[in-house]
Amino acid sequence: MTALAAAGLDIPVTVMSPSANDAAARAANHLAGSPDSLDDLRSLAAVSDVVTFDHERVPTAHLEALVAGGTNVQPRPRAKVLAQDKALQREVLGRRLGVAVPHHRLVRTEAEVDRFAGETGWPVVLKARSGGYDGQGVWVAEAPATARAALREARSGGGQVLAERFVAIERELAVVAARSVTGEVAAYPVVETVQRDGMCREVIAPAPVEPTVAAAATGLALRIANEIGATGILAVEMFLSGGDLLVNELALRPHNSGHVTLGGCVTSQFENHVRAILGLPLGAVDLVSPAATMVNVIGGADGSDPRSRLSGALAVPGAVVQLYGKAARPGRKLGHVTALGDTPDASRDRAWAAAQALEGAAA
Amino acid sequence: MTALAAAGLDIPVTVMSPSANDAAARAANHLAGSPDSLDDLRSLAAVSDVVTFDHERVPTAHLEALVAGGTNVQPRPRAKVLAQDKALQREVLGRRLGVAVPHHRLVRTEAEVDRFAGETGWPVVLKARSGGYDGQGVWVAEAPATARAALREARSGGGQVLAERFVAIERELAVVAARSVTGEVAAYPVVETVQRDGMCREVIAPAPVEPTVAAAATGLALRIANEIGATGILAVEMFLSGGDLLVNELALRPHNSGHVTLGGCVTSQFENHVRAILGLPLGAVDLVSPAATMVNVIGGADGSDPRSRLSGALAVPGAVVQLYGKAARPGRKLGHVTALGDTPDASRDRAWAAAQALEGAAA
Repeated sequence: MTALAAAGLDIPVTVMSPSANDAAARAANHLAGSPDSLDDLRSLAAVSDVVTFDHERVPTAHLEALVAGGTNVQPRPRAKVLAQDKALQREVLGRRLGVAVPHHRLVRTEAEVDRFAGETGWPVVLKARSGGYDGQGVWVAEAPATARAALREARSGGGQVLAERFVAIERELAVVAARSVTGEVAAYPVVETVQRDGMCREVIAPAPVEPTVAAAATGLALRIANEIGATGILAVEMFLSGGDLLVNELALRPHNSGHVTLGGCVTSQFENHVRAILGLPLGAVDLVSPAATMVNVIGGADGSDPRSRLSGALAVPGAVVQLYGKAARPGRKLGHVTALGDTPDASRDRAWAAAQALEGAAA
Repeated sequence: MTALAAAGLDIPVTVMSPSANDAAARAANHLAGSPDSLDDLRSLAAVSDVVTFDHERVPTAHLEALVAGGTNVQPRPRAKVLAQDKALQREVLGRRLGVAVPHHRLVRTEAEVDRFAGETGWPVVLKARSGGYDGQGVWVAEAPATARAALREARSGGGQVLAERFVAIERELAVVAARSVTGEVAAYPVVETVQRDGMCREVIAPAPVEPTVAAAATGLALRIANEIGATGILAVEMFLSGGDLLVNELALRPHNSGHVTLGGCVTSQFENHVRAILGLPLGAVDLVSPAATMVNVIGGADGSDPRSRLSGALAVPGAVVQLYGKAARPGRKLGHVTALGDTPDASRDRAWAAAQALEGAAA
């Protein structure tokens, strides 16, 4: 989607990925390679004015090596690592910036989890320090026995484990902001994100919260963007709990909570990512409609391809379908649907109807 | 833009064009070839479920040969030829469908032009029977002397010449409609098109006309779409003259007067072209805003590239820029800008400001 946005501005993009059949590769020039290889990254840098990424699993050391060699990498590795390393993220947000985050501690042993639970009470949330996504790498342990199993699983990957207080959440909110290399910033309207099975299911724009809450969330995201020197898109996921905002996660790239901006806002997060990393003026972030809803299209248990059901989704009036060209697998995000509406309910009804048509679920 | 729309639906597109550096080729799979070659067209057909085109200068006989060979060509050659052959178009619209068109006649000699002018008065409009575009192939002859020069020039290409009554135009309107191979039809809001030097300069949506005029224009376009068996996008350009609507031109493809739908409407004309030729349900054609304006970006006399002025255009709040990746040449359409607004004036001001920034003109 970023490559398509760049194409509209006639800005050439080279996508590095293992296969020329990858969806992003088909929308751009393609360079076969892996971000795990510094040599491959250097080949990409050699044909690029700016190097960016659409996931954070690019080794930070490689990006630092590119920067040391004179490559313009955006966002900068020292900002990007905050999205990858949950412990460092909590440290920087909580201690250095004074942002409210859930109570947390790195844990290695069952005894340390028990001690942590002694302070916070059960349940305890255990998270892989890095590498988790879409509900992978997160466990809610209700009691010591389940904590032991979760700890074992969490540590089986060889990584460290972060214990977190379980927060009673009223709503999950997200603010997608763009920050240019020039320092210009813009924040999209605050959205509510609805998770299911640890995975983003639905995004509602604007979030149904009081203006004071929305203003606080926006201010928090912009402050974080400036303080950590984010460039491109920064998504800040927050918990609204007891009237307070706690920062849960950062993403330094176009993010699922911002997919609603594609068709829902004057300028999509993808175009603003491109503008921001190139130092071009940021585009307008206003919603084009009183309400917009995005629903993810998730691969069903039968592994069937939503493409085979495209017609049913396109028949839903006002639904805008985006399919990613990924192989269908159960639980995988394969696309999304956005719908505008004069009311949140109107937009939600349309987006859900089209998403369920694609998923083959009974509506 | 059609290829980008298809990419969003994960529908693979192969573009046939002479060079892999053509803008459309960069957004899709590319097949080197020319529509003037039936062999090349057959190579394209061999890898395609449906063959379509984004200009009408594809030889109709070639398309008919493809259809005879079993290729699914949309729109059908017998409909497409109406956009290419202005004399046949007038004949079919005027005599067979009873649609009001400007008084016209094929002319070969100066004496025939003079006789025509004797019926209609001067000026007389002379048009190349086929092949004209963007003001090329159209001459307004004020008097016999200029008619002679125009006739000479018009016939120098070897083609026939159509004489037309000069119509006193209040406004030029256009209706962009989509008609699916299933017969489903949808018409976008009627737009006003503003020409300069015979070339579309600006499109204002919705057109500032009475609801009865808009309804008549829409009804006319849908009737034509059904009667001629159009598939994909049909653009009907009309003159509003003395309160009456006269059909001036047909285009059977995504058309400049519909570029405002990209960002201005829920579903762009490009996506609806794709949906229509594949028999997928058509998308919503509503404007997302009370008003939207599209201004073409036209190459300036100095031949400079608007890309070098992109930053200035992106700085205009709310302007959405689309650049086509074409080589800059004086008078060539190199891109367009769209802006939404709560009022027509607000959207026009923004779109013009950004277009003029790209053109390097004094605002």
